[in-house]
Amino acid sequence: MNAGSQEAAAGQEAYGQEMYSLVERLYPLCRSITGDGVRETLRIVDEYVPLDVHEVPTGTQVLDWTVPREWNIRDAYVADATGRRVVDFRESSLHVLGYSVPVAARMPLSELRGHLHTLPDHPSWVPYRTSYYTPTWGFCLAQDTLDALEEGEYEVRIDSTLADGHLTYAEHVVPGQVPDEVIVSCHVCHPSLANDNLAGIAVAVFLARELARRKPWFTYRFIFAPGTVGAITWLARNRERVDRVKHGLVLACAGDPGQLTYKRSRRGDAGIDRVLRHVLSASGRPHRITGFTPYGYDERQYCSPGFDLGVGSLTRTPYAGYPEYHTSADDLDFVSPAAMADTLAVCREAFAVLDRDRHYVNLSPYGEPQLGRRGLYGSLGGRSDAEQAQMAMLWVLSLADGEHSLLDVAERAGLPFDTVADAADALHGAGLLKA
Amino acid sequence: MNAGSQEAAAGQEAYGQEMYSLVERLYPLCRSITGDGVRETLRIVDEYVPLDVHEVPTGTQVLDWTVPREWNIRDAYVADATGRRVVDFRESSLHVLGYSVPVAARMPLSELRGHLHTLPDHPSWVPYRTSYYTPTWGFCLAQDTLDALEEGEYEVRIDSTLADGHLTYAEHVVPGQVPDEVIVSCHVCHPSLANDNLAGIAVAVFLARELARRKPWFTYRFIFAPGTVGAITWLARNRERVDRVKHGLVLACAGDPGQLTYKRSRRGDAGIDRVLRHVLSASGRPHRITGFTPYGYDERQYCSPGFDLGVGSLTRTPYAGYPEYHTSADDLDFVSPAAMADTLAVCREAFAVLDRDRHYVNLSPYGEPQLGRRGLYGSLGGRSDAEQAQMAMLWVLSLADGEHSLLDVAERAGLPFDTVADAADALHGAGLLKA
Amino acid sequence: MNAGSQEAAAGQEAYGQEMYSLVERLYPLCRSITGDGVRETLRIVDEYVPLDVHEVPTGTQVLDWTVPREWNIRDAYVADATGRRVVDFRESSLHVLGYSVPVAARMPLSELRGHLHTLPDHPSWVPYRTSYYTPTWGFCLAQDTLDALEEGEYEVRIDSTLADGHLTYAEHVVPGQVPDEVIVSCHVCHPSLANDNLAGIAVAVFLARELARRKPWFTYRFIFAPGTVGAITWLARNRERVDRVKHGLVLACAGDPGQLTYKRSRRGDAGIDRVLRHVLSASGRPHRITGFTPYGYDERQYCSPGFDLGVGSLTRTPYAGYPEYHTSADDLDFVSPAAMADTLAVCREAFAVLDRDRHYVNLSPYGEPQLGRRGLYGSLGGRSDAEQAQMAMLWVLSLADGEHSLLDVAERAGLPFDTVADAADALHGAGLLKA
Repeated sequence: MNAGSQEAAAGQEAYGQEMYSLVERLYPLCRSITGDGVRETLRIVDEYVPLDVHEVPTGTQVLDWTVPREWNIRDAYVADATGRRVVDFRESSLHVLGYSVPVAARMPLSELRGHLHTLPDHPSWVPYRTSYYTPTWGFCLAQDTLDALEEGEYEVRIDSTLADGHLTYAEHVVPGQVPDEVIVSCHVCHPSLANDNLAGIAVAVFLARELARRKPWFTYRFIFAPGTVGAITWLARNRERVDRVKHGLVLACAGDPGQLTYKRSRRGDAGIDRVLRHVLSASGRPHRITGFTPYGYDERQYCSPGFDLGVGSLTRTPYAGYPEYHTSADDLDFVSPAAMADTLAVCREAFAVLDRDRHYVNLSPYGEPQLGRRGLYGSLGGRSDAEQAQMAMLWVLSLADGEHSLLDVAERAGLPFDTVADAADALHGAGLLKA
Repeated sequence: MNAGSQEAAAGQEAYGQEMYSLVERLYPLCRSITGDGVRETLRIVDEYVPLDVHEVPTGTQVLDWTVPREWNIRDAYVADATGRRVVDFRESSLHVLGYSVPVAARMPLSELRGHLHTLPDHPSWVPYRTSYYTPTWGFCLAQDTLDALEEGEYEVRIDSTLADGHLTYAEHVVPGQVPDEVIVSCHVCHPSLANDNLAGIAVAVFLARELARRKPWFTYRFIFAPGTVGAITWLARNRERVDRVKHGLVLACAGDPGQLTYKRSRRGDAGIDRVLRHVLSASGRPHRITGFTPYGYDERQYCSPGFDLGVGSLTRTPYAGYPEYHTSADDLDFVSPAAMADTLAVCREAFAVLDRDRHYVNLSPYGEPQLGRRGLYGSLGGRSDAEQAQMAMLWVLSLADGEHSLLDVAERAGLPFDTVADAADALHGAGLLKA
Repeated sequence: MNAGSQEAAAGQEAYGQEMYSLVERLYPLCRSITGDGVRETLRIVDEYVPLDVHEVPTGTQVLDWTVPREWNIRDAYVADATGRRVVDFRESSLHVLGYSVPVAARMPLSELRGHLHTLPDHPSWVPYRTSYYTPTWGFCLAQDTLDALEEGEYEVRIDSTLADGHLTYAEHVVPGQVPDEVIVSCHVCHPSLANDNLAGIAVAVFLARELARRKPWFTYRFIFAPGTVGAITWLARNRERVDRVKHGLVLACAGDPGQLTYKRSRRGDAGIDRVLRHVLSASGRPHRITGFTPYGYDERQYCSPGFDLGVGSLTRTPYAGYPEYHTSADDLDFVSPAAMADTLAVCREAFAVLDRDRHYVNLSPYGEPQLGRRGLYGSLGGRSDAEQAQMAMLWVLSLADGEHSLLDVAERAGLPFDTVADAADALHGAGLLKA
């Protein structure tokens, strides 16, 4: 992946625009944990990378959960006495409480208020609210809109269905040289929120496309699933596969202007944790690394103690860390091509390391092997790099005891990872190492 | 113990006065490692909490030691030529060297000097000295008193007996729900010294009374024994019980004005060490935590490498850390009701945590269990506490792998211990955890 | 070794002079990885400590290497048209490229330049260069000398032989009470360089003489061998002995004015690492401790992962850390008797600790053993030392569980190592410890 990663970097700016365009296409759709909004989202993603779409029937037992009824919505509004829609689902998918049961009624504002959700601290923003497991209905609107409503009768209509159907999720696999897998997981259940998580979906899509153009070591599996119950459904249906998952990354909030944040896996020192720490630090980017918490995105499920996978989470500003979170202000202006391109670049760099990181064993561990007669002195790089390449070979030989990975070697030696990996390739080629 | 601990806190001030009154009653008695002073001390303590008193005959082999002869004393003085008592045991039990053999003689001051102990740096204070295993006699007095003595003949009289008898110690047990034990140990061998260790005895007594009013998880065993040989005697006679001792605390110097000091067990990371660190830190009290040293009080014996119990030591100013230590200045003015009440409060808080701390195993560890259908969302606490309670449940579920105790969870999550323990109770009640 | 170490310290100044004299004698010889220069060096060292000299034939397989042909040189020069030697091996052994093949030719300066090595940044210094495994010839000279040469024809002559012969190394053994060994290793392949490594050889020789006057616990084996291939040869011929090597030290650059530097073994926490850290810190000397790197001196071979011996390296200014390194400026003015005496003193102190460090087991681990009846209270040292000696005994008893060495005890207790070792001797003598 190394030579290609430079080519990829060159296309970073163009990728930013393409990712932004994808976000724009997905933005208007009304997604939820089930329903046609998810299907249409996956249909669009499939134009970029081919997807295997899975439909799991309502009522299916998935781990401790049950696949819920499918929710679909065609229209929803609150109209005043003149018939004017004062709250209109056609303007924004956020205006309806997610999973609202159908309703068609007239009622005074005083009664309606109990079904209206606003953000008094941000009176012009519309909040995002759901009620998946308690049957009810509601509308979300700006406090300013609410304040402008006059008392009196209103027509209330939610043209939704909540019925047996399916939960929909999709996978895209980039085959590798080994069946060991790296998973990249995005939630696809949020309606018109750009950063959370359309930017994450877009970065995942373009990451998959880049990987597909290479022949990576690991098999990379991209999972596009509704949050919580979707990840739980994937885990329930892939319990035998979980043993093959060596690393994973949950991508979300990938496009806001904040600095990058990596949240460690529950293990705290899994391979992905070490790689992200190394890459973020080596890149010189301002960033933050936080410990695992059992809250946030679907790392909660992948890292639940029974699975305890080495899955971390990469975001820019993390979960609930910005005022626009779960509001209408998480819109197309809140995310940028440059921020998504930067998130993609870090993923690319991290997976480049992850993909080359190995545990080698020195086959000539008693004393130093004589590198000169094997043509390994000064054989790598230009004159100024020769000394570093030679040190890298000595470090790899010294630490290739099966306990230290190449990333361990790079960090212990204070050498760039690629220099160490190149040295290992040369030593491996000379028969001095086995994997 | 939780609800009760608030009620207990309310009574803290009253307890301080009651503890001080007990110290006042015990202060005049001449205690030593054997003899009637210890018996009378235990008789008074028995008025507060019922004691099992054990009498172990002189000559009994206890571990590497032998129970010594019993020492009793009725009177002792140095009188001048006029018959005036210039040093008088009736004034203070400190005036006689502990375990002095009997003597009745007349001698010049020049000869007597070899038997007189003073503190030249604190000329008005009387030192506390003993000679348990080298038979000799002596008097302790103020340097000022000595300086005022004229040369000439003095009458010297120590009316003591050193004879086969018994070593006396006592136990008080607060039964718990499990036979696993927590021991609380105090030395009862020091004569008229208020901080070292009458304050420790008083705190232990009131701690026992509080525990007795609850139904604690652990069985709490209070040991009142002479220092060193008494603790060794208890260990020698309870070798089969030692396996049941999960935690322990040696209480001493519990009433001086200094800040609290916790000295870790030899293990350094025993449960009691972690609990005291947590409670002292969470309480905001100024305090000090020190590493184990094989010196001090009877933690030396409980933590000897053959036993290596998880027993720490709680004091205010520690062993030998104040000038009044082992002098007549460690008197009733040196200790206060408030300081003893504060020591008692920390013990109460620590044992409240210790008693609820458990290692649970998540019975639904694959993905998150669905808390909503079990009524566990928002089921605990008021509205403002609901979010913290929910986070506590997620943290407990995440870390309930048998490796992490509830205290580990609380510290990792940054949540109050009680919140975490309440969450664990709720999850346990819902069948999601096993102990 | 304790009492003797004070006597030894007294002779430190005298030793400094004697070591310097040895350096002066060895300085003119032309050493390389084989040949008569090494033999003559070992013959002189043998005058100080008796050596077992080993001759290993050319072509012998040693681990991954093969013993090379033997190189000897009688004369070498570059002469100008008048016959004047402008570069003359008789002036300094550095003037010829080590392992130069023979040459006798006339050539213009323009052609000769490709065989001349200088240090443009230090125009008055002659560099040290070798070409062991690529057959070529060359001269090393000052840039100033080169700049003064006029164009024209020069006579070039190197009267060397490169032929089947032997690699020569030597050992000196100081027998100990146990067959477990400590190795001290010096490279003897560098020509006229005083610090690198004649000072190291001199310190090793006098360290061996001091040890020989004692009856040390460990068997100390001093290895004088050419760098890299010499150490590899020793390892190849002593593979069964390696299991007996418990500790080791590579000595080099032992006489320059810089502060001491200890480079840890690959293990990082081997016994020798802990001892050097302790001794350097306790001595109050300014010093530096660095992590292992797979470069430097023969610790590279002893610490190769197949052997992974507990061998560190002691230098003053380390490998390549001073401008005079591998140049004619590493001469007799660059090293001093005082610096060598200081290096020797640290070796002495370190081996005094290493030699007494033990893992004991407390035979009376249940409660404290009664020290008084064994006469162990106040039995050691003067009155002011008695309390420290008693604390040392309690610490040894507390930590003598087979897991903690006496050095562990000293560091944990904050007591001088000798006090702790004396306490252990007393307890061992009383039957309270077993080794």
